[in-house]
Amino acid sequence: MSTSDIHILSTGTALPGSAIDNAALGKRFGMDALWEQWVDTFVGTKSRYLSFDLDSGEPFGRLADLGETAGRAALSAAGVEPGDIDAVVLGTATPDMLMPATVNVIADRLEIDAVPTYQLQSGCTGAVQALALARHLLRDDGIRTVLVLAGDTCTKYFDMDADYSELPPAELINLVLFGDGAGAAVLSSEPRPGAPVLREVFTRLVGGGLPPGHELDWFGPADKHEERPGVTEDYKAVEHLVPGLAGEVLGELLERLEWSAGEVDFLLPPQLSGRMTERIVAGLGMAEAEEVTCVAEVGNSGNALPFLQLDRLLTRMADGDRAVGVAIESSKWIKGGFAVERVA
Amino acid sequence: MSTSDIHILSTGTALPGSAIDNAALGKRFGMDALWEQWVDTFVGTKSRYLSFDLDSGEPFGRLADLGETAGRAALSAAGVEPGDIDAVVLGTATPDMLMPATVNVIADRLEIDAVPTYQLQSGCTGAVQALALARHLLRDDGIRTVLVLAGDTCTKYFDMDADYSELPPAELINLVLFGDGAGAAVLSSEPRPGAPVLREVFTRLVGGGLPPGHELDWFGPADKHEERPGVTEDYKAVEHLVPGLAGEVLGELLERLEWSAGEVDFLLPPQLSGRMTERIVAGLGMAEAEEVTCVAEVGNSGNALPFLQLDRLLTRMADGDRAVGVAIESSKWIKGGFAVERVA
Repeated sequence: MSTSDIHILSTGTALPGSAIDNAALGKRFGMDALWEQWVDTFVGTKSRYLSFDLDSGEPFGRLADLGETAGRAALSAAGVEPGDIDAVVLGTATPDMLMPATVNVIADRLEIDAVPTYQLQSGCTGAVQALALARHLLRDDGIRTVLVLAGDTCTKYFDMDADYSELPPAELINLVLFGDGAGAAVLSSEPRPGAPVLREVFTRLVGGGLPPGHELDWFGPADKHEERPGVTEDYKAVEHLVPGLAGEVLGELLERLEWSAGEVDFLLPPQLSGRMTERIVAGLGMAEAEEVTCVAEVGNSGNALPFLQLDRLLTRMADGDRAVGVAIESSKWIKGGFAVERVA
Repeated sequence: MSTSDIHILSTGTALPGSAIDNAALGKRFGMDALWEQWVDTFVGTKSRYLSFDLDSGEPFGRLADLGETAGRAALSAAGVEPGDIDAVVLGTATPDMLMPATVNVIADRLEIDAVPTYQLQSGCTGAVQALALARHLLRDDGIRTVLVLAGDTCTKYFDMDADYSELPPAELINLVLFGDGAGAAVLSSEPRPGAPVLREVFTRLVGGGLPPGHELDWFGPADKHEERPGVTEDYKAVEHLVPGLAGEVLGELLERLEWSAGEVDFLLPPQLSGRMTERIVAGLGMAEAEEVTCVAEVGNSGNALPFLQLDRLLTRMADGDRAVGVAIESSKWIKGGFAVERVA
């Protein structure tokens, strides 16, 4: 077991611009005070970061920029040179382009070259898939240090010209729910004092026979894209299925690791919205574990979230502490989980 | 070494509709006989398969359909049940949607569930990345059989309403160059008589400091997509760099495996266009190896190609035969290589 342990040397994060609260968002899109109360009560997300200027709509960053910033921070925090990185993995649902893959743009900017790179296309479990893939790589010969990145941006779905006061709540919610961000971690097959161990990580498709709960479409230049929506979400299905799936992941993690619920010091729950995360946590029965959560402050920034949580976790962990993380992807229903332990 | 050998149990392929030759393409888009001669001479691609009806523009298949067909064929040829598959990997540049990832749609249709799935976003080396990732998975505990898929469709970039007679050659070439398709393979950590061994597989970013040679953009619903092109290609850079990179991959494969050029029975070269592939092969100095190539008949179907080549290879290999494959991605310049041996 110990020979295949993977160590988290560092994390890094990137959030574009400054926090945009619901009042600022409401003001920009002509929503009233009642709308703000509705958001507070039913969504519970208080602010988010967006990679474009809210007034002008002018983008000031893309996923490659966020990934570069997060990756550079992680490399620096780990004290690892670009030349020491043996592979780069990025998990995202929203790459800047289809080709080149954003992971290669980021690698180039960080002066990482001549190594394998992998970009995983996935919704909210892409970050966990990236950790799982990194672990597989690190267990193989010749790969000792991997830079793992994850993040998303919603610029291409945020129509600055739309009249939001006319939209139904099911579409309006996207305005408050999502945000942009990226995170990174340096993983190593070699131990380092104080670096927690990635004890377990898995993802698993569980969407057999189920309709997608979340679809994100893209358009090519030949598409008549007015004819179909870019985003559809089945919030009822999300509300219905995610808490149970999160419980399954938690149960499986504890069973595999032979940890009891009382032995877990930190819980990193799925980050859907402030309110949804509260509800999921309430159902998990982990009252003794300290919750590490950030969605209410940063919005649902997709694949960035597990790394934003990990970043907060690492500063709080003491020797002997144990943490479990859960991510659920509603697109085609994927369960993801990971566990981290700081060995004394 | 032998304990970590990976075995190719089977392959499967899918090409949509029937072959469309240059005369049919020219007729549909109002091109003359001179154009056809130009295509024959300078491109060398004679036909391709498209997942939409050339007359009506009506799509009759997407990547999920092609992947399902290829995957089902590979499972059947391997005699493997969906429940025996421990992980699914798909490499593509052109997923049907961003969410759900196409790999999960295909897995669901094949009744593969409760396993990890990975979708790699990449241009022409995505198939090789998928093989490499599958090998990493198979070397880890608990994963014995992996379904690997790769493919691309160009429907979203093929504007049926454009006036092609007005386009400059650099854009017109996309009309003849590309095609749609998918391929699959079942890989196992356990040997089977007659199943060749995947001896080596790697990909490596080599784009440090180089501008992309091929860009494929996507648009969200908020994008003003008339303002920027969906595709840009630097054919001069491709012509200039790909032959040398292909030679480097070949050299590295032979060195790693300690094979001499004369010991290689089959060569699977990069599949850019009929003519480009001829030129690359001419420079590789592997005259004694039998070439396994298909781009002139199927068009540049991106990530499908290495699997279409593998499919042709497996029927020709005899005990003791050795094959090397090379794929080069011009997007941000990635080298990919693999080697297959049928052990007696």
